[in-house]
Amino acid sequence: MNLESILHRPKANWAYGYDTRTIHIRLRTKKDDLNEVILIHGDKYAWDRTVSRLVMKKLPSDDRFDYWQAEVQPSLRRLRYSFLLRSASEELYFEEKGFREDEPLDPNGMFDFPYLNAVDVYTPPAWVKDAVFYQIFPERFANGDTSNDPEGVLPWGGVPKPDNFFGGDLQGILDHLGHLQELGITAIYFNPLFQATTNHKYDTSDYMKVDSHFGTNELLKQLVDACHERGIRVMLDAVFNHSGKEFLPFKDVQKNGEKSKYADWFHVMEWPIAVKDGLPTYETFAFEPLMPKLNTEHPEVKEYLLGAAKYWIEEIGIDGWRLDVANEVDMHFWRDFRKTIKAVNPDAYILGEIFHDSLPWLQGDQFDAVMNYPLTKLVVDYAAKGVIDGQVFAHKIGELFASYPDQANEAAFNLLDSHDTERLLTLCGGSKERMKLATLLQFVFPGAPCIYYGDEVGLDGDGDPDCRKCMEWDEDKQDRDLFRHFQQLIAIRKEHRALRSGGTLGFVHAAEGDDLLVIERKDEHDHFLIAVNSGGEAASVLLPVQQGQWTELLGGTDHAATAGKLKIELPAHGFALLRSAPHTNPVVIGL
Amino acid sequence: MNLESILHRPKANWAYGYDTRTIHIRLRTKKDDLNEVILIHGDKYAWDRTVSRLVMKKLPSDDRFDYWQAEVQPSLRRLRYSFLLRSASEELYFEEKGFREDEPLDPNGMFDFPYLNAVDVYTPPAWVKDAVFYQIFPERFANGDTSNDPEGVLPWGGVPKPDNFFGGDLQGILDHLGHLQELGITAIYFNPLFQATTNHKYDTSDYMKVDSHFGTNELLKQLVDACHERGIRVMLDAVFNHSGKEFLPFKDVQKNGEKSKYADWFHVMEWPIAVKDGLPTYETFAFEPLMPKLNTEHPEVKEYLLGAAKYWIEEIGIDGWRLDVANEVDMHFWRDFRKTIKAVNPDAYILGEIFHDSLPWLQGDQFDAVMNYPLTKLVVDYAAKGVIDGQVFAHKIGELFASYPDQANEAAFNLLDSHDTERLLTLCGGSKERMKLATLLQFVFPGAPCIYYGDEVGLDGDGDPDCRKCMEWDEDKQDRDLFRHFQQLIAIRKEHRALRSGGTLGFVHAAEGDDLLVIERKDEHDHFLIAVNSGGEAASVLLPVQQGQWTELLGGTDHAATAGKLKIELPAHGFALLRSAPHTNPVVIGL
Repeated sequence: MNLESILHRPKANWAYGYDTRTIHIRLRTKKDDLNEVILIHGDKYAWDRTVSRLVMKKLPSDDRFDYWQAEVQPSLRRLRYSFLLRSASEELYFEEKGFREDEPLDPNGMFDFPYLNAVDVYTPPAWVKDAVFYQIFPERFANGDTSNDPEGVLPWGGVPKPDNFFGGDLQGILDHLGHLQELGITAIYFNPLFQATTNHKYDTSDYMKVDSHFGTNELLKQLVDACHERGIRVMLDAVFNHSGKEFLPFKDVQKNGEKSKYADWFHVMEWPIAVKDGLPTYETFAFEPLMPKLNTEHPEVKEYLLGAAKYWIEEIGIDGWRLDVANEVDMHFWRDFRKTIKAVNPDAYILGEIFHDSLPWLQGDQFDAVMNYPLTKLVVDYAAKGVIDGQVFAHKIGELFASYPDQANEAAFNLLDSHDTERLLTLCGGSKERMKLATLLQFVFPGAPCIYYGDEVGLDGDGDPDCRKCMEWDEDKQDRDLFRHFQQLIAIRKEHRALRSGGTLGFVHAAEGDDLLVIERKDEHDHFLIAVNSGGEAASVLLPVQQGQWTELLGGTDHAATAGKLKIELPAHGFALLRSAPHTNPVVIGL
Repeated sequence: MNLESILHRPKANWAYGYDTRTIHIRLRTKKDDLNEVILIHGDKYAWDRTVSRLVMKKLPSDDRFDYWQAEVQPSLRRLRYSFLLRSASEELYFEEKGFREDEPLDPNGMFDFPYLNAVDVYTPPAWVKDAVFYQIFPERFANGDTSNDPEGVLPWGGVPKPDNFFGGDLQGILDHLGHLQELGITAIYFNPLFQATTNHKYDTSDYMKVDSHFGTNELLKQLVDACHERGIRVMLDAVFNHSGKEFLPFKDVQKNGEKSKYADWFHVMEWPIAVKDGLPTYETFAFEPLMPKLNTEHPEVKEYLLGAAKYWIEEIGIDGWRLDVANEVDMHFWRDFRKTIKAVNPDAYILGEIFHDSLPWLQGDQFDAVMNYPLTKLVVDYAAKGVIDGQVFAHKIGELFASYPDQANEAAFNLLDSHDTERLLTLCGGSKERMKLATLLQFVFPGAPCIYYGDEVGLDGDGDPDCRKCMEWDEDKQDRDLFRHFQQLIAIRKEHRALRSGGTLGFVHAAEGDDLLVIERKDEHDHFLIAVNSGGEAASVLLPVQQGQWTELLGGTDHAATAGKLKIELPAHGFALLRSAPHTNPVVIGL
């Protein structure tokens, strides 16, 4: 048995409350090393009369490790446990004190989950699991009110540049809610809406006011209400790491220097503030002098920002915040942020922007989820660019899902592109088939998929600023076939819980050098096989399944398994979404 | 290279702020697998012009793994990094994305420490690193006021039983502060002092009042002031997990059932509350019906308990809280507890009682430290009982220290016995030599050693209740030799920072089957070798050191190294505390 591979340390992603009654226990072992892992658990104060055994389930593996998970609901909310590890040739017990050959009987040497206190349970809002988001970059979605256009506004549809304006605004969004409703999305993520000087508005000058070129606070309230009437939730972008240069406190610091009453609102290393050889003498986002880092440890700064965060929830009725550069802001701030927000709306979604390992922020005390950039990269690499095979995709997904508590995966924000990246169609080299394949993958994983405005009608674009083109509203120029594809994906996902967070996730075919991949999603009602071929040539696979009828949900042909085998044939960049006929309970044998 | 052994995941004990300027980075590798690990680090927004390399230091290893640590002070408080791993035959880079053969150049694939925000830094009070604690079980220390004796009080020095009383009180402690001062301790940890029915007072009935058999709040204030005058700090025991049966809210619930206004202060599973077949219908500590678990999530309970916690700090002037059954109380409570306490006294020590892996509580937002039970067990097993050899001791110490941030180790509460265990002398089978050896070990590790009252004068005792004997005040019956031993250890530790938290920790001799162990502590001023022999026979070791004179500080003979070798000979259960002559800078070659 490979002991070096074995990893478990209570809390984090290894032992956590899943809900107020349920504890999840996970264990990592060397890939293919063990046949079975059994969780031996009981009450620490009454071990002998409560001890019980549970076979752990295998989660998707990565290239080096297997992951095992068990779910326990101890009636007194406390748990001691050890593991029985079984390989073909060996049995070993693993407890907190280490490995041993004989069964541990003293609970004091075992792993401990001392108490499942309800308030500590990491609980993202339930609605996020079922949501489909749509991201709007407000300056480029629709110009519904020319009276508030910025000076020098350009005609709709021109070439986007870092500093030009096309007049998009809230009225434009209000005018086009029908489009979103037709598409079927259930939530909007808005890039920043507050007063700022740039077209992207990430340089906030007033956290309490809608940008005057976009409209007014009252108009945003109207828009939020109109969204809610259509069953659409609204998430705004909070840029709390840094302000813009026109933020009044920063202007005061620029003017009055060390004597400014806002001197401590920022992190000034050297007075007077200046930029020397390109390096600001105050802390900033990156090295950007126009984005001074806010001192979120300062009580007044905190009060101001938390007040703003609360205002938009309480007064305007928004349903969540996406937190820009979230990991550079202190954790005390985010804990108080969570308390403030959840006190006014327990269902508000708190989404962090973090590009790296985000576990420390996903423990229940800070964020509900993070932007799922690792998933973005995997889908883009596999489906859009075709640079990784099905096995690498499956392994990296296994690693990603095992690295977080299930709640984090279920509430993850699954985007494929955004205002910061090339557009999906461009990432796909202009191939609509690849784009359909990529989006199918996006829609069959736990988490909330997000469509970047315009992708659904065929907008393309290189990286910023080209990905921020004006929305195409001329139906003749829209790709209506793509639109129907998105409509269909959304509708199917909405209909079947097994494709969302309710279903188990597995890979039934993922092989080295093989572009054909088959994913399995399953719950008590549905059994899905999602077959995708990212390769440039036709491919097929024969899967061992129990006799069963399989319905194709995306317009392809239905399938029938014969003699326990299901043959799936896919053209280049082809895909199939197969659902087994209900109540036949076919069993797919795993990898 | 053994890749399965390699472990690093930012935050926790792997990458953490050590102070507001310094980040510690740690890596785990397979034991003896690598010759060198280099940390490659830089600023994420200016990688090319900031990248720099740092050779990582090796910490004490355990039986399976090596641990490496580096200390970085990035001027802009943010860090990206990867590792260069060097074995005899191989070089490999390790970044967040995985292993690779070529040097990573894109900081986006590397590990990330996004920002060292001051408020997030885990900062135990500085004084704890230098403290020597003394634990007092108040009912058994001294009876200074017979007028407040409980009914049926027994003559001082009788046989302790679970429910008998000997009249110990605060006045008795006040009367004997001279003894503590003579011993040299700098802090007292009191078992519970608040109104309760038992002799141990872990069943609080009033969190705002000193037990009437112990004295009054005013008398405690006098005692605290008297301690402070003598440079002695005071820590009380907070039993916030559960109350006693006489706690007024619980009495009200017993009386009024579901209609009690305190009904939600507890966790009642079934009304009316009762005990059925030994099982309470409400949650308790263990299954003890007399100790109902408090609902620390309830705002009123929280307000009451935090109010009490604050009162004793603010009004009575105590210097810290030891938190009973700390890991069964919710973390939100402890975070607010920390804020409440540190707001009135930033120097107050918050010490959790946790028997298991305590990492989740040692991240800076909850406790300053935990009771170091793993160290207790190791010293007892090695020195008191002689059931593990020097190598196992060294390996387990290595594992323990690597499992927490340095701050946790430096502020740890290092006890060898307590009111819950057999007394040290009894654990040593009555051997004073073993006891001296055990306490020497206790006094040369980072953390704050604690002496259980009476150990210093030779009290013995089996487990509870025998370990709760009355203190021996008759000097003729006290073991004055032991007392002088403790005095000496305390004095030496106070004099030399290298023996406390300032020095590095290493093992220069620790071998399988060998009872002789040599520990090294070192800082810029001092170089110590602590040699201990837990075996029943004489033993010796020859250490390769640079030429140097070594002074014995515990009354033994001085040593001189000849021809680069230092010979240490120890009798059965013998020990030596050697300090190198200043300024000769001898170098001891590690294992």
